[in-house]
Amino acid sequence: MNDLMEKVVALCKRRGFIYPGSEIYGGLSNSWDFGPLGVELKNNIKEAWWKRFVQNREDIVGLDAALIMNPKVWEASGHVANFTDPLKECKKCHGRFRADHLKDETCPSCGAKDSFTEEKVFNLMFKTFIGPAEESANVAYFRPETAQAIFVDFKNILDTMRVRVPFGIAQVGKAFRNEITPGNFLFRVREFEQMEIEYFFTPPKADNDWAKEFDKWVSEVHSWIKDDLGLDPKKVSEYEVPDSDRAHYSKKTIDFMFDFPFGKEELYGLAYRGDFDLKSHQESSGQNLKYRDPKTGEEFLPHVIEPSFGVDRSVLEVLLDSYFEEDGKIKLRIKPSLAPIKVAVFPLLSNKPDLVNLARKIYLDLRKIYMVVLDERGNIGGRYAAQDEIGTPFCVTVDFQSLEDVMVTVRDRDTGRQERVKIDELKNFIQEKLNGNRNRT
Amino acid sequence: MNDLMEKVVALCKRRGFIYPGSEIYGGLSNSWDFGPLGVELKNNIKEAWWKRFVQNREDIVGLDAALIMNPKVWEASGHVANFTDPLKECKKCHGRFRADHLKDETCPSCGAKDSFTEEKVFNLMFKTFIGPAEESANVAYFRPETAQAIFVDFKNILDTMRVRVPFGIAQVGKAFRNEITPGNFLFRVREFEQMEIEYFFTPPKADNDWAKEFDKWVSEVHSWIKDDLGLDPKKVSEYEVPDSDRAHYSKKTIDFMFDFPFGKEELYGLAYRGDFDLKSHQESSGQNLKYRDPKTGEEFLPHVIEPSFGVDRSVLEVLLDSYFEEDGKIKLRIKPSLAPIKVAVFPLLSNKPDLVNLARKIYLDLRKIYMVVLDERGNIGGRYAAQDEIGTPFCVTVDFQSLEDVMVTVRDRDTGRQERVKIDELKNFIQEKLNGNRNRT
Repeated sequence: MNDLMEKVVALCKRRGFIYPGSEIYGGLSNSWDFGPLGVELKNNIKEAWWKRFVQNREDIVGLDAALIMNPKVWEASGHVANFTDPLKECKKCHGRFRADHLKDETCPSCGAKDSFTEEKVFNLMFKTFIGPAEESANVAYFRPETAQAIFVDFKNILDTMRVRVPFGIAQVGKAFRNEITPGNFLFRVREFEQMEIEYFFTPPKADNDWAKEFDKWVSEVHSWIKDDLGLDPKKVSEYEVPDSDRAHYSKKTIDFMFDFPFGKEELYGLAYRGDFDLKSHQESSGQNLKYRDPKTGEEFLPHVIEPSFGVDRSVLEVLLDSYFEEDGKIKLRIKPSLAPIKVAVFPLLSNKPDLVNLARKIYLDLRKIYMVVLDERGNIGGRYAAQDEIGTPFCVTVDFQSLEDVMVTVRDRDTGRQERVKIDELKNFIQEKLNGNRNRT
Repeated sequence: MNDLMEKVVALCKRRGFIYPGSEIYGGLSNSWDFGPLGVELKNNIKEAWWKRFVQNREDIVGLDAALIMNPKVWEASGHVANFTDPLKECKKCHGRFRADHLKDETCPSCGAKDSFTEEKVFNLMFKTFIGPAEESANVAYFRPETAQAIFVDFKNILDTMRVRVPFGIAQVGKAFRNEITPGNFLFRVREFEQMEIEYFFTPPKADNDWAKEFDKWVSEVHSWIKDDLGLDPKKVSEYEVPDSDRAHYSKKTIDFMFDFPFGKEELYGLAYRGDFDLKSHQESSGQNLKYRDPKTGEEFLPHVIEPSFGVDRSVLEVLLDSYFEEDGKIKLRIKPSLAPIKVAVFPLLSNKPDLVNLARKIYLDLRKIYMVVLDERGNIGGRYAAQDEIGTPFCVTVDFQSLEDVMVTVRDRDTGRQERVKIDELKNFIQEKLNGNRNRT
């Protein structure tokens, strides 16, 4: 790992964002637990996504399906047959590697030459058994993606919600991939969360029809990255997956690449999948999955565009892009609305009951709305620095003058600017700042 | 299933709350998917819980740990050895049953007498393998409870957050139990979500010390049920688990029972677990998990009280308790702040552009804050009825007078009362009603 990545990993552990999973037992192969601040950041990202793509749109509805589905789902989708990685093992050190990631015939772990076994195919789904007997009839898989559940529930949603094409179904939830070589902190983990939409529309009569839908989604993804995550658009690029690497049913796939410290890597994906999925499930299940146009009476399988967002990668990119050092001090310039703690309240001195009581009153009032902390300890500069490290956008100080003028000092994380604000206008003041985009000032 | 349960299951499917999992493939043994309205209800419950127990308390911090932990965790916790059910199989029909649920020697499925196999012990954890080889060295389990992750991360939280006993760690997340006989809709499922807190305090010097902490949590659980879920307290009772049924390390366990249509059954649990868990993990991991009192310098393993809430059971009880029929019409009297849709906006007539445009403007404005729908179709009575079925607390109608007086009619779900409200005061009007408890009027 390079310098920035190491710093972010260290900060995440030290300040309660992210801990190595099962650490007291020596960990578990690149698994991670979200600590008190990490869970807030992650939830804020998921809520912002839901707000943008479900609450604020009339053409997208939500779903939250079971992680374990009927195994026939994964036969129909092609995952049982094809969701595989090529695997090679080093005969000397028994290290296992993705054959397509090996650069030459030298083991990257022990350095042995020409020591690899033949390439084997390895299915990435986590397998388990339902019920008491470990028999093949009882095999089940933990879903390797959230998307298929959307196709499986498509008919129920058609039948029960007043949806009209074009419309989308959105889902946030866990997925599992038994990666041979997980790594790069949250970038490649075996257990992760996805935010996915399947957006259904009338089968195009000309290429231009789907291209228009596709372009709308390209803009949507960029806008999410810039406006909702507050990330630097210059770090994001598009990579169009060439014909040879694209699934046969997809007419176009774009990977949104982010400048991670370990290189340009996939952040999000956008794929035009035609009617491949609905058709497969219609054939395999024997159920009619066609949409009936209420005006023309025409029946058809809609085509679909799939924007796919990783939650963990979103957390990672927000942390990486927000990390700054100034005069040897760390500042996380997280977009304020995503920050784990929105406001820190400080009494100027901890041994003055009047200040402490007023600070406490303000704290109790604000925490009805936001995640807020009260910090009484040490000098104000040290308290600012502690909040800067975790990205708290607003620090509110109660001083002696506050007891006279019923105002407090609000210090802005990014500009360092201090403003006197009336206590009874504090909520509105903060809310207005949170609604704006103050990340890149 | 009895009458009320059948009605709720049918409503849930018909209106997009909850669908049978993998239904187009014939389902999967009592698994359920949350549809567009169900996911909103479930998220609202989880958010209310997080707000109450994390955001609004200064003594509880959050956590979101990986579902797959190092298997040593489950050895230390006793789950590998003891998290089992006794199983009997009918030799005739091969039905499998929990031996402790069988009332006599007659098979409840085929009626055969004395047909059971010997009792076998069956571990309820879902087993899988990490990495490409299905070897015992690679066995892993999907967590059967969220609680253990809290103990495993206890040291990291001690080291990185400014926590002082008494304090708690809260977590919301999935857990998995390979139940032999799941059933009763959301009541017993193999894949479920838990909201759990481990609340740590100084080892008691007298029984009275822990009893006081315990009683505080009894009140908290009742208050959550009544104030946050808006449920009828008369349907909730306490059952103190007798010595013989209680885990050896627990000094007291209370099950909160709810009057489900299929009988009084466990809704939530509250257990005093002493220092059993931290001690087990300290011994197994070889790590020092002691808390050091900053004032006295004394080191000790805190004792713990564990309130445990099922998300799916919470959804189920909210649906069951909210279901009413009046004059043959269904009304879901869900506590307004939990309702999937907060406001429905209707233009009185769909063929009058002035009404439609104003309704649309109000809709677009409100959905920045809430889940809102716009419905233009059919007569107002029918539209009210459709919203009553899904528990929408407020219906806003735009009529011809609205164009003159810039007011709308707000109709209250529970009372049926209609009020004229100024359009620019609508947000405040709704917010005030949502903050109050209007469920049981």
